[in-house]
Amino acid sequence: MNPQIRKFLPTLVRPESIARYEDGKVLIGDRRDYPFEYPWYECESVEDVAQAIEKMVTQGAGPRFAAGYGFALAARDASGMKADCALEHLEKVEQRLVATRRTNPSTARLLSRLMCVARSAAREGISLEQAILKEMDAYSNESLARAEKMARFGATLINDGDGILTMCFAEDPFLLCVAIAYHLEGKRIRVYTPETRPYLQGARLTAPSIREMSVPVTLITDGMPASLMSQGKIQKFMTGSDLVTLDGHVVNKVGTYQNAVNAYHHGIPYFPFSRKFDCNRPNRASIEMEERDPREVREFRGVASSLPEIDAYYPAFDITPPHLVSGVVTERGIISPYDLARFYGAESGDER
Amino acid sequence: MNPQIRKFLPTLVRPESIARYEDGKVLIGDRRDYPFEYPWYECESVEDVAQAIEKMVTQGAGPRFAAGYGFALAARDASGMKADCALEHLEKVEQRLVATRRTNPSTARLLSRLMCVARSAAREGISLEQAILKEMDAYSNESLARAEKMARFGATLINDGDGILTMCFAEDPFLLCVAIAYHLEGKRIRVYTPETRPYLQGARLTAPSIREMSVPVTLITDGMPASLMSQGKIQKFMTGSDLVTLDGHVVNKVGTYQNAVNAYHHGIPYFPFSRKFDCNRPNRASIEMEERDPREVREFRGVASSLPEIDAYYPAFDITPPHLVSGVVTERGIISPYDLARFYGAESGDER
Repeated sequence: MNPQIRKFLPTLVRPESIARYEDGKVLIGDRRDYPFEYPWYECESVEDVAQAIEKMVTQGAGPRFAAGYGFALAARDASGMKADCALEHLEKVEQRLVATRRTNPSTARLLSRLMCVARSAAREGISLEQAILKEMDAYSNESLARAEKMARFGATLINDGDGILTMCFAEDPFLLCVAIAYHLEGKRIRVYTPETRPYLQGARLTAPSIREMSVPVTLITDGMPASLMSQGKIQKFMTGSDLVTLDGHVVNKVGTYQNAVNAYHHGIPYFPFSRKFDCNRPNRASIEMEERDPREVREFRGVASSLPEIDAYYPAFDITPPHLVSGVVTERGIISPYDLARFYGAESGDER
Repeated sequence: MNPQIRKFLPTLVRPESIARYEDGKVLIGDRRDYPFEYPWYECESVEDVAQAIEKMVTQGAGPRFAAGYGFALAARDASGMKADCALEHLEKVEQRLVATRRTNPSTARLLSRLMCVARSAAREGISLEQAILKEMDAYSNESLARAEKMARFGATLINDGDGILTMCFAEDPFLLCVAIAYHLEGKRIRVYTPETRPYLQGARLTAPSIREMSVPVTLITDGMPASLMSQGKIQKFMTGSDLVTLDGHVVNKVGTYQNAVNAYHHGIPYFPFSRKFDCNRPNRASIEMEERDPREVREFRGVASSLPEIDAYYPAFDITPPHLVSGVVTERGIISPYDLARFYGAESGDER
């Protein structure tokens, strides 16, 4: 990654502040009270790591870094075992970590890559732990390089004067995209971030991260995007994605779909960013949707919003169909949602 | 109002629990921490009442009841004055109370009615305070009778098995409508209430009120309506309104417009309830939009959601144009948004 670009990275997307591996411990940046606090959450076992991911200690790209280091921890635990037992142990660990979050496939994909590395390390008789940590370093660098490519493509979509609506936390490709447009290309833009209830990723993570990059940002509630569109304040809708299927369905935090419908209604293009394509997820039917504890809907940072006996419902993600998608920002360019299979169909399971 | 219908009324829409007048004091049911607490907020002066309305101590129909009793308080204060001075005093009070909330015209309309009553009481030399209180009793009964009519018309729109999306707090006509459909007509329905950030009227007021009537209700966040529509869970969208202009534009809590766009996209009809038509608000250009303190967007029941230095924006209402409105539920039936002027155009300023 270009150092001039890297210096824009706000805290939450700097690899060194997402998660770390230290002598048999995994430290995860605990985002649950970000931006008010950002302590390290210490994990001494794979089970600790898995539960941390399930408890939303980290999110976005965080779970895959945490899971990768958790896998290194498992390799360290297995260091006294015979090679075949160690690999069998790691396969079980892989399953446990994959089960933490079902909708976003990138953790599964990284772990499958690390499992291959472990197998070849076992064949060569070298330390599994060291081989996995080395691969994690490579992965982290590749990930940033990909983010830079996507960010540069994304910036070409932005015009001087644009208001850009986002949703949830769109990760380094989007964050770098607006930083490049604003700081390097001199485009006067403003990012509008819906707070993204119930977990408030927009209010807690996105708005402070964009402000950290000194790009103009305005926080709104999740009920306001269409109102702003009708006032002419929004020219682009850009989000990250948890998954884009090969037939162009975008899975992202619940609320994305209705913003996409409203963008379409107002003639505003929608551009999701994605580096995640997967031959195992060819279409809508292949999406595994995560429902989370409805209690979260009745709370806000631990404060009740309604009575505990009121029913609530919390589908964590929604699906935006390809006819509402103007183009998917990938590291190969901005691709029609109807041509993803040709670009990415052959790369089964490869996130690079 | 039919007593069988009246018994459905949940706490927040029973006139006796919205606001009361007691010997020179106005007591307002303080909804700011409802449903966790519901204390009486005591006002000893008109200025207390005005500030209580501005501080959102009450909302929906609450401000007009509070303002009406505040007006009686002013009449009591003026009891030692000469008639023309007393009326001049009341005119100033009227202006102060009208200025509390600009978008919804119903407070202004009630006060104008009470001002007429005061003038004729002054001519007849009877107690202004007593005349105003008597008019408030009549107003309260008329208001319930109107609500019943609208509720019965609304119930005809609901089918067995319907999921009904609402937004914010839709007052007695909508609440009674779902109670009639469920309890008297035996239609198996479920109401979905978005929490309605930032003030959480959906979570705090609507969901508990619907549950109090023993009608099935599910709380969701403001980002979920379209996701539920795409899952086939929603068949009707029904809300209250702060104002419907004579050319069919619906002003309601921000978030209503984007739900209406999504309903339209999914082939779901939208029916706002309105008893508020006003010849002074013929069209979109005549709407006065209230913007509230953006700090509320960064908070949730007093708990911060983001950093204080982050810009925020809080348009309190939005506008849904008539082509997204399937019919306006009024006390005269369900009227096309394109025919309101013929039905209501002549009734300038009359809320009855």
